Amino acid sequence: MLKYQNNKNCPFCEAILSENFFCQSNNFVAIYNIAPILPGHCMIIPKNHIQKVLNLSDDKLSEMMIFSRKVIEILNKVFPNDGFNWTIQDGESAGQTVQHVHLHIIPRVNKDLPEPGDWYPKLVESRNTESKNRPKLTTDEYLRITEKLKESQNK
Amino acid sequence: MLKYQNNKNCPFCEAILSENFFCQSNNFVAIYNIAPILPGHCMIIPKNHIQKVLNLSDDKLSEMMIFSRKVIEILNKVFPNDGFNWTIQDGESAGQTVQHVHLHIIPRVNKDLPEPGDWYPKLVESRNTESKNRPKLTTDEYLRITEKLKESQNK
Repeated sequence: MLKYQNNKNCPFCEAILSENFFCQSNNFVAIYNIAPILPGHCMIIPKNHIQKVLNLSDDKLSEMMIFSRKVIEILNKVFPNDGFNWTIQDGESAGQTVQHVHLHIIPRVNKDLPEPGDWYPKLVESRNTESKNRPKLTTDEYLRITEKLKESQNK
Repeated sequence: MLKYQNNKNCPFCEAILSENFFCQSNNFVAIYNIAPILPGHCMIIPKNHIQKVLNLSDDKLSEMMIFSRKVIEILNKVFPNDGFNWTIQDGESAGQTVQHVHLHIIPRVNKDLPEPGDWYPKLVESRNTESKNRPKLTTDEYLRITEKLKESQNK
């Protein structure tokens, strides 16, 4: 079992401890979103339970961003796209719901949504994971996609 | 006059050439948003006309993020806050309207909007800068805020 500074009530710490990630750097992992707002929607999170971007050191912040481009190379193989939304909600007032830094990376394809900006209202629906507009993957589906992304690193 | 690889039709290149920024690093500047969706809304942009995050080198991507925290220190002095939204729309399909990399940094305060997630629909209104919900600053207001942020670096 991996050992990091974790918080037992945090779903991201749980994903790390269960090794439900598809790629990692020294201090970060990439996990697939359990209720993706679009195909390929994943998150970059620190292995330690760190709450805010401002609590990351400069080196770790750089590592997170450079790692995110490695993750994008993997996503490109499985989810062909024309662009990406990158976003962090830092602090509850900003809409952060899980108190563990997470950078959303969302691949985009022309006309995937009625308007390019429609991704965000869907993201906000994370507060209600039972939403019809944002269905949750089954455990099987989730593990299958994670495995596919993991394998595509070496292709 | 500053000399960078600029595009004469790009409003961000114009802001750089006119030195309408409040802070800079070697390769980036921070400019205030002409139609801020909330007080303190600014953008980090590369000095050169670079279209997508994936076109930045690893070193420049790190520099952008480390610089963004310096910008946040400045914002904290002028716009007290509880958190931040950080977001990049990379590519037209993702909602990028100006083809020059820009990282939005938006200070947040508890209950500044009816729901924390309401910032994004307002951001999307950038397509219509005459919107009543997102009024454009006058040139005087814009220059005054830029000057105030510039001065606060040394306080």
